[in-house]
Parts: sequence; C-alpha cells; structure tokens
Amino acid sequence: MTTDLPVLLVLDLLGTFAFALNGALTALRVVRLDIVGVVTLGVITALGGGIIRDVLLDVPPATFNDWRYLAVAGGGGLIAFVFGRHLERLTTPITVLDAVGLSLFAVTGAGKALDLGLGPAQAVILGATTGVGGGTLRDVLVRQVPSVLSSGLYAIPALVGATATVVVTLLGVHGPATAVGAAALCFLIRMVGVHYDLDAPLPPRAFGPPPDDDGPR
Amino acid sequence: MTTDLPVLLVLDLLGTFAFALNGALTALRVVRLDIVGVVTLGVITALGGGIIRDVLLDVPPATFNDWRYLAVAGGGGLIAFVFGRHLERLTTPITVLDAVGLSLFAVTGAGKALDLGLGPAQAVILGATTGVGGGTLRDVLVRQVPSVLSSGLYAIPALVGATATVVVTLLGVHGPATAVGAAALCFLIRMVGVHYDLDAPLPPRAFGPPPDDDGPR
Amino acid sequence: MTTDLPVLLVLDLLGTFAFALNGALTALRVVRLDIVGVVTLGVITALGGGIIRDVLLDVPPATFNDWRYLAVAGGGGLIAFVFGRHLERLTTPITVLDAVGLSLFAVTGAGKALDLGLGPAQAVILGATTGVGGGTLRDVLVRQVPSVLSSGLYAIPALVGATATVVVTLLGVHGPATAVGAAALCFLIRMVGVHYDLDAPLPPRAFGPPPDDDGPR
Repeated sequence: MTTDLPVLLVLDLLGTFAFALNGALTALRVVRLDIVGVVTLGVITALGGGIIRDVLLDVPPATFNDWRYLAVAGGGGLIAFVFGRHLERLTTPITVLDAVGLSLFAVTGAGKALDLGLGPAQAVILGATTGVGGGTLRDVLVRQVPSVLSSGLYAIPALVGATATVVVTLLGVHGPATAVGAAALCFLIRMVGVHYDLDAPLPPRAFGPPPDDDGPR
Repeated sequence: MTTDLPVLLVLDLLGTFAFALNGALTALRVVRLDIVGVVTLGVITALGGGIIRDVLLDVPPATFNDWRYLAVAGGGGLIAFVFGRHLERLTTPITVLDAVGLSLFAVTGAGKALDLGLGPAQAVILGATTGVGGGTLRDVLVRQVPSVLSSGLYAIPALVGATATVVVTLLGVHGPATAVGAAALCFLIRMVGVHYDLDAPLPPRAFGPPPDDDGPR
Repeated sequence: MTTDLPVLLVLDLLGTFAFALNGALTALRVVRLDIVGVVTLGVITALGGGIIRDVLLDVPPATFNDWRYLAVAGGGGLIAFVFGRHLERLTTPITVLDAVGLSLFAVTGAGKALDLGLGPAQAVILGATTGVGGGTLRDVLVRQVPSVLSSGLYAIPALVGATATVVVTLLGVHGPATAVGAAALCFLIRMVGVHYDLDAPLPPRAFGPPPDDDGPR
C-alpha cells in the first residue's frame, strides 16, 4: 500500500491538493455553484484520477482506506472557495494547478501500477489515465469537451511523465529525486504547450460535416 | 451480503424503484426518447448509485448477483413510461422521487460500507456518493449540470442521512426504525431546501469570467 | 481468461478495432481534435465497453493484462486519423463500425459473464452493457446524448445478440459459428433499424415541459 511508500504518498497528496484547488476554482469560474458544489467539484477532481486508477487495478480505492486523501481534497476545495472569490483572474492558477496535478498523478499512477506488477506499457497508460482522469470527470460534469481530447499537449506530457517513471524504475534508480524529476518533465512540457499554444498535428481545416450530413450515426 | 440484512435490502429496493421512476420521468421530460431510452435511463438512474458504491467498495455489484434489482429497476422504468405520459406536470413527482431515492441510498450506502469494515468518515462519504451517484449519471447522460453540483441542498441532506446512519450504528442502536428515521431526516432537509429554494452560501454575484478571458485552461 | 478462449478473444479484438476506428472518425467529424485527441477518443471508445464489463464483473480489466487490446485500439485510432481525413463522408462508416463493435461486444460480454458464473439474465444485461458502453463514453465525452438513449434500435439489438449468446450456451451448442451468428443477428437488426429509421414506441408528440415549468427538479 501507499503507506509503505512515503514518496509516492506525499506526491499523491500534493497532486490531490492541486487538483482540489483546480476543480473548485473551475467551479467558481465556469458555472455559478454554491459552496457545496464548489467543494464537491474540487473533491471529485482531486480524487477522480486515483479512484479510476485503483478501480482499473482492481484494488480498493486508497481514498476509502486513508482519511488523508479525503481531508486534503475537502480542505483544498474549501480553501479555493474562500480565497478564489477574491481572485480577479482564475485562468492562470487553474492552468498551473491542473498541470501540477497532471504531472504528480502521472508519476504516482505509473509507480503504483508497477508496484502491483503490471507490465511497462500498461503502467504508462495507467499513469497517464490517473493524470488525466480527475480533470476529465471535472470537464464532463461542467459540460466541457475534456482537456484530454481538446488540448494538444495534455495527454502527451502525462505519457512522457509516466514513461520516465517506468524507465527509471526498470533501471533500478527510482527514488524521490527521479520521481520529482519525472513530474517536473511532464509539468514543463505541459506548460510549454500552454504558453506557445502548441497542438499536435491537426486534420486539414476544411474537414467537417458536409451540408447534407444528418448526424453522427 | 444484503440478503442477510432484510432492512437494508428492502430500503435499497425501494430506493431503486424511486430512482427508476425518476430517471424514466426525466427522460420523458428533458429529452424526447422512445420506450427503450426511457426505460434505459430509468435503469441507469436506479442502479447507478449502487453500482458506484460497490465498485468503490471493490465488491461485485449487488445488481449482478441479485435479479431483484434489475427487475425492480426495469419495472419502475416501464411503469413510468406507461403512466408518465398521462401526467401533465412532471416536475413535482420527479423532485419527490429523486429525494426518496437520495435518502434511501444514502442510508443503505453508509450501512453497507460499515458492514464491510470501512471507517465512519469513509462510510459517510460513500453513503452520500451512493445517494447522489445515480442522479449524477442521469444528469450527465441527458447533458445537464448534475444536481449534486448545482443544487444547494442536495449533497448536504445525503451527508446528513449517511452521518445519522453511522452515528446510530456506532451507538449500537441501528435497526429498521433508525434506518427509516435517518432516511426521513435526509428527505425532510432535501424537501425543505427545494420548497424554500435554499442554497448553501454562494460566491459574490459579480463573479464570472472577465471579458478577455479565453477559456478555463 | 480470454486467452483460453480464442474465439472470444478474436471477436473481442475485432470489436476493439471497429470501435477504435469509429471513435476516431467521430472525433474527426463531431469536434475538431488534433491527432492525440482523435486517437484518445478511439482508444476510449474501443476499450470502454470491455473495461466497464470487467469492472462490473469485479475482475482486473483484460486491457491491462493483455497488450494486444491497447495495440489494436491505438493502431485503429491512428489508422482512422490517417485515412479518415481523406474520406468526404464519414456518416456511413461511423454507423457501420459502431454496429460491428456493438454486435461483437454484446456477444463477447455475455460470453465472459457466463464463463465467470453469472446467471442468464445478468449475462444478457452485461453483454448489452459491454456493447453500448464504449459508445456511451464516446458520446458523453463529445457531448452528445448517447445512442443508447436516443437511438431507437440500439439497445434492443445488443440485448438480442447477448440473449442469443446465452441461449446457445445454455443449449450447449456454442462455438465460433454460433458466436458469429449471434453477432450477425445483432448487426442485422441494428442496420435494419438505421436503414428504415425505426424507433421503438414513442411517447405522444405533444409531450413536453409546460410553459410554466421551471426545470427538471
């Protein structure tokens, strides 16, 4: 369990906190919600990635065995509700916190998958899924097209961070420094992508439904 | 299992029935669906909360071990399709049935979590999640912002009902009467909130995206 | 596991491939996504049904134990990205591929449920859920009302295909031919429904929210 792995646990709780702030600020910004709605969206964003990871690993979600996840997630949501209402612009903190959570969860998700004996490719996918999972739930609940689909460099940095985690683990040199390094790599790629508004290759712009097309199915 | 706990089972099936009616009436009201769509939305609303609960508890969903859940959910959806089309106004029955399902599932969810050895805080969260889960799936599928985010007093009564269940269980006085009492408490708070249109504290009304803001990330 | 059941495995991988193409083409058609978004939606559509099936069966998702699912899903998404951009009309291939995936997954889902000891009714529901699961995730992510709710003959063919699988298994005559036959039956009903635009019985057309109605709850 994560309690034997203090590095993973600390990074996991940091990611939980970042996503809780992010989800709650998104609730303030995108839809007009009361305090319960704001904190709830923060908690779901914070715990969603880890819950999806543990459900896919077929183990009981850490959230329900360790009260610290709930406390950190709820506390983060509450802090964002109290202080977020004084911020005039929320876009930058939302983006940065999302990138922090994405990076930390990609690393801890891949690490937990390896701990439980999954193969390298599966650990990479599962790490990336942990990173993007909470934000995807958040976007579905507030009715946005999820970042993981719409945002060019979102899945890619998560895959890179998870891959770096798997590689250093296979090389036998994983530890606090390499875990933080893998997360920093993911964070850097994500923020460069945001700053320069980079996208992965797009289909030709002319693409779209022909006029006589009557729906996607 | 629930078969050893007739009270939990009966309340669980009642909640399933209420949510099946609610989901099917929502399908009639919000989107124009045929009989299959109406019954399907009823079944998903009815079984969603319990399935989420069991997945989070890492046990096989009761739905797939006990045919009565499927029968009650499908039957409820069918009844709502047949009789709902004769109702001129659906808002009131939808609201009341949703509150009934919310209350019963918050109590049975918390009870099942305690039975499986989870701690009090986890049981409260899991009970509330069971209560709001089916309705959240319903709202996502018909593309509404989920009640649990948008509706002031929705998560709170579920948390109160689950907390009451945990408290009476820890006091060793749980039984049919206290389970019904905890559900009634949740139902009452929810209906008072609906009647007086109460909200939990809101952020300042001026809050919103500044004009030059270009999206949540 | 599926490796002991080559027929189920082959049909499962074929269904995965069909849904990967379908999901990626949907991404090209409905929303303007870059290559990562297109492949991601293909992978989610392809793996979603099987993951939901395995989560409900409380077994580790086959996806994370068998690299072939990931490879087929990712490859399908990539192929659709490369070739789909040259197709002028996508509606017909999207519809046909969706029907192929639906049919194959309804059969393999019901078969896996029976293998794991579930009862006939549960196997039928679980098979149909496997069939419609990936497409439902796809529709939620691109913000459409899911086919399973809006499209008359979508759940019904999946239920028929799963029922046929259960019946031939209970009769002891299941094998490659009957599995393909059950899938073909499902595919045929689905395509007839699409071609003639058939719907299951609808509520009266006058149905709708009265003017003074203020929301679904």
